[in-house]
Amino acid sequence: MTMNKTGEFHFITESYLLDFKGQTTIPMIGNYLLHAASVHAEERGFGYSDMNKRNAAWVLSRLAIEMKEYPRMSEQVTLYTWVEEVGKLFTNRSFELVNSEGKPLGYARSIWAAIDIETRRPTLLDVEGLSAYLTDRPHPPIEKPGKIVPVENTAEGIPYRVKYSDLDVNGHLNSIKYMEHLLDLFDLELFKEKNISRFEITHQSEGKYGMELSLHSASMEPDKYNMAICHEGKAICRAAVSWQ
Amino acid sequence: MTMNKTGEFHFITESYLLDFKGQTTIPMIGNYLLHAASVHAEERGFGYSDMNKRNAAWVLSRLAIEMKEYPRMSEQVTLYTWVEEVGKLFTNRSFELVNSEGKPLGYARSIWAAIDIETRRPTLLDVEGLSAYLTDRPHPPIEKPGKIVPVENTAEGIPYRVKYSDLDVNGHLNSIKYMEHLLDLFDLELFKEKNISRFEITHQSEGKYGMELSLHSASMEPDKYNMAICHEGKAICRAAVSWQ
Repeated sequence: MTMNKTGEFHFITESYLLDFKGQTTIPMIGNYLLHAASVHAEERGFGYSDMNKRNAAWVLSRLAIEMKEYPRMSEQVTLYTWVEEVGKLFTNRSFELVNSEGKPLGYARSIWAAIDIETRRPTLLDVEGLSAYLTDRPHPPIEKPGKIVPVENTAEGIPYRVKYSDLDVNGHLNSIKYMEHLLDLFDLELFKEKNISRFEITHQSEGKYGMELSLHSASMEPDKYNMAICHEGKAICRAAVSWQ
Repeated sequence: MTMNKTGEFHFITESYLLDFKGQTTIPMIGNYLLHAASVHAEERGFGYSDMNKRNAAWVLSRLAIEMKEYPRMSEQVTLYTWVEEVGKLFTNRSFELVNSEGKPLGYARSIWAAIDIETRRPTLLDVEGLSAYLTDRPHPPIEKPGKIVPVENTAEGIPYRVKYSDLDVNGHLNSIKYMEHLLDLFDLELFKEKNISRFEITHQSEGKYGMELSLHSASMEPDKYNMAICHEGKAICRAAVSWQ
């Protein structure tokens, strides 16, 4: 069976996973994106189990999500994902979210690296193998995720200890939970007045069970915030959030 | 169109919503159950929007979940739900979870009340209307959820403040988040050694944004714990958890 280069996934929003505005949250959109990425890769022979055979694992390095409109209660959403670029150490994957009439709701772009399971150090990608899945589909009309200015030394941190519900299948702090804890730093009034137009995150190192973290947030300009999650003063992830 | 009395729902587990053991969590099973309950009721004319027209809303009073086996990565699960009993103030709804071969994975039983949207006080159910959906299907082979012995005066509480990510579409503490915060009280070692065989919860009142809560847990006998979430010393919910 030849798989399409672009993966197509369908989901229906679930009522208990919506926020108080009746909208799908950024962490839940993150879940849909990352799940689609896993399945897309697995189906094409470069997923979790294939990487595992090579003693390697995928690691999400950077992710940027831009939403024009948030899916609401029981809404059918289609998610497209495709490989945008392949390099020796990084590969870029793009996403497009559309509603049941095909109208774009949002886009995402992500950068992934592979690590050696034992050493946890970056390892070379199978450039030739992965390149077979490159498409002509243009990248989404949003900026790539990039470097985020540190705020951990300017904004005081709120303490947080990693719990059972924070762990993913690898026993590390779940990518979705990073987003959840960061967004909880914003006041509810901001959610009432505005929506997140762009959410960007970069991962530096892994969070583990029981780890004492500090959550930082500072406004850079009106409606723009830089954020960080630190462990012993060193950022394990940084984020940038724009509101509209 | 005549709807079957028993609702049938299908879902596939998603990798980023599994725990460190690669298993679906109790809160995520709770999400599937409550989502199926909402859709089942809505499709049969007694859901959220129908209740809203009568100035009323469903409130989950008690829920018991028993799992023999937890769905794992990318597993297809079927969930059946049906109305088990209808009274003047309460109605009972049952659930059965089976895997792709029809093998039962677990069961749940729940008790619901209706409240007046304005007064937030219990209101009478439409017994005749709801009774049209009673089936001959026997209730699941697990005990109904019942009264839970208080522990808030014997076990010291861990403080928790209700955040954005805790809120449901009604702006109250999400039923799933109650479960998540309670389970986070258990040590990871317990999750490593055992599984939750029964999780039972009773809701007494609504949690709201910014509310200062305390989370309590006490072991009643080996592998059995009673729990409570309190606000100003009064329980807003109680739970009982058995491990095996």
